[in-house]
Amino acid sequence: MANDIISSMQNPKVKALLALQQKSSERRKSGLFVVEGLRELLHCVEAGMEIDTVFFCPEILKNEQADMEVLTSLNAARGIYEVTAEVYSKMAYRGGTEGVMAEVKEKKLALSDLRLKEHPLIVVLESVEKPGNLGAILRSADAAGADAVVVCNPLTDLYNPNLIRSSVGAVFTVPSVACCTEECIAFLKERGIRILTAQLQDSHLYYDEDMREGTAIVMGTEATGLTDVWRKAADAHIRIPMRGQIDSLNVSVSTAVLLFEAVRQRFEKK
Amino acid sequence: MANDIISSMQNPKVKALLALQQKSSERRKSGLFVVEGLRELLHCVEAGMEIDTVFFCPEILKNEQADMEVLTSLNAARGIYEVTAEVYSKMAYRGGTEGVMAEVKEKKLALSDLRLKEHPLIVVLESVEKPGNLGAILRSADAAGADAVVVCNPLTDLYNPNLIRSSVGAVFTVPSVACCTEECIAFLKERGIRILTAQLQDSHLYYDEDMREGTAIVMGTEATGLTDVWRKAADAHIRIPMRGQIDSLNVSVSTAVLLFEAVRQRFEKK
Repeated sequence: MANDIISSMQNPKVKALLALQQKSSERRKSGLFVVEGLRELLHCVEAGMEIDTVFFCPEILKNEQADMEVLTSLNAARGIYEVTAEVYSKMAYRGGTEGVMAEVKEKKLALSDLRLKEHPLIVVLESVEKPGNLGAILRSADAAGADAVVVCNPLTDLYNPNLIRSSVGAVFTVPSVACCTEECIAFLKERGIRILTAQLQDSHLYYDEDMREGTAIVMGTEATGLTDVWRKAADAHIRIPMRGQIDSLNVSVSTAVLLFEAVRQRFEKK
Repeated sequence: MANDIISSMQNPKVKALLALQQKSSERRKSGLFVVEGLRELLHCVEAGMEIDTVFFCPEILKNEQADMEVLTSLNAARGIYEVTAEVYSKMAYRGGTEGVMAEVKEKKLALSDLRLKEHPLIVVLESVEKPGNLGAILRSADAAGADAVVVCNPLTDLYNPNLIRSSVGAVFTVPSVACCTEECIAFLKERGIRILTAQLQDSHLYYDEDMREGTAIVMGTEATGLTDVWRKAADAHIRIPMRGQIDSLNVSVSTAVLLFEAVRQRFEKK
């Protein structure tokens, strides 16, 4: 804590953080990513992630003294730095509302790391394009108590700042795995988890499908839908009925509707 | 069609369109708003809206000849203008992907204009703050075949460009009414439409509630939830079970989960 207050955007530590925030190549290279907000950082620690470097601004912290105690307990490997309000608000992706941000060491999970409950509920996404959609899906997956979100052939990394923001922290609470399609299909088949693919053609209504056993809900990309590999691997094809004129739902909305149908079937008192 | 090609951003017609796009005060004053895309314009016409002025760019139109025939059939009251690709892409909120945009006359609906089916399904929103969320809710309401979306004490107008975009045109296909809370409650009570308020406290699980009769699903604001007026007017309080650590769902996601539960109850073959 005995560091000088950082007051310049030219400070090498500030520049390094901005690079991590803006470039996925920097995140890949260093294995670090940026998290804003005290609550989010606590979720990281709970998920077993290591905090590398913390930056805070006392003027912006909501409850300065209590928050400082929590910050110290985070055990940042390379230190805690105070920054001026001006520098903080320029560093922060969300603007100057939180008062604390940090570089965090990513913790890559493989399928074999997943600890699944009995009758697991898993979301599988086939290369979703928009980080905001992926974040929204993680948020819904957390709310539905899903065991994991698996992203096949990802086009966005899991630590994109827009994704973190739209997940409101669920990217740390829901175990997330990036892997290739074949690996994912083999994993599900081996464990007897039923594969339900969301698709319009050649499908039946989602609420007619039993989702009480181990279930993976597989969603295609926003633009082109699911590939044939998944359609063929499926135990059943399901669709949400379209009763309007526009004939489309956002992929994060569809995923939530399907997830909560599984919740209903599993927990409704008959 | 015998107009010169508009090639300057200083053209008064171009400036007028940009003002409508950027300022809700301009939209209120003129009763006009901006719509991009041919499909969206056709939805407007179907919804009984009048097209005022059309701007198009032949280079960007996908199927120039066929599209031009459709444009002519729109009967724009104050004409159709060709613009250069450079001007078009600067005018368009969505960038230069559609090739056609227009000023459209808004058609304000009152509650008394709504034509409801037997056992209507209505979404009521208490002053939702974000245009993007309202657009996403309209999109889901279309998909679920809801009869109407009523926005009480709106904080955003229905013709905000971000709302139109995120609704993917559903703002034209789903009858939408802006009114005050008391008026809306009286309307629902008179027609025997059951009021279900989404709230965490003092509520039961949404799938235990019968939604097969006329139903209004009432959602609070993103930040502060529902006001007491609605809680007291409710026939039942419902909640979506939160089975994760974050304890929150996006308001547009919650609305979709509730709407599709009504769809399931109404259409599932037992």
